[in-house]
Amino acid sequence: MTAPEPRHPLADLDETVHQRARLGILAVLAETREADFTHLKTALGLTDGNLGRHLEVLVESGHVTLRKGSDGRRRRTWVRITAQGRQALRSEVELLRQLLHIAELTDPGSGA
Amino acid sequence: MTAPEPRHPLADLDETVHQRARLGILAVLAETREADFTHLKTALGLTDGNLGRHLEVLVESGHVTLRKGSDGRRRRTWVRITAQGRQALRSEVELLRQLLHIAELTDPGSGA
Repeated sequence: MTAPEPRHPLADLDETVHQRARLGILAVLAETREADFTHLKTALGLTDGNLGRHLEVLVESGHVTLRKGSDGRRRRTWVRITAQGRQALRSEVELLRQLLHIAELTDPGSGA
Repeated sequence: MTAPEPRHPLADLDETVHQRARLGILAVLAETREADFTHLKTALGLTDGNLGRHLEVLVESGHVTLRKGSDGRRRRTWVRITAQGRQALRSEVELLRQLLHIAELTDPGSGA
């Protein structure tokens, strides 16, 4: 019998939020609160289809809401972060902070 | 004509390193330098198959190397982080540090 090994903090990262594009979307929205589809697409270097799919995931999970509107001639979709989305980003950042702490403690500053 | 919008730092995250399980593997190895398959599996809460597939990706990309050995009766696989792997983890951490900076500047501390 050996004691159970402790789980690494990164084992608890939430893929809904950690996934690169979705983390980017939430980070942009945390800065601006609301952003339109085209701005998100450009800022994160995503295609229409890709951004659309990731937004679907984030709407389903309650992290963002969408609002359709128009800007004179153009139809626009505005995306806003929810309180739950902000909380999830905060939890992710807290876990990443632990990772950075580990990296700082253990990085020998050389190429190993 | 409008000026091109700046890309968000997260647009440049490297999926090879950012993906949850692989980031976990590299973070554990940066701490311990070398770890065996079973330890990684337990620490990160992964299945054999899952860990095996992620290690294949990291070996292919030059971030880790594998060494087979035995520990008395048991066959073991040791995993070691390479200089390139350590550098990639450092770049990821640097990008995440920018994200934390953004989050700190913009987090209103309320549920917004």
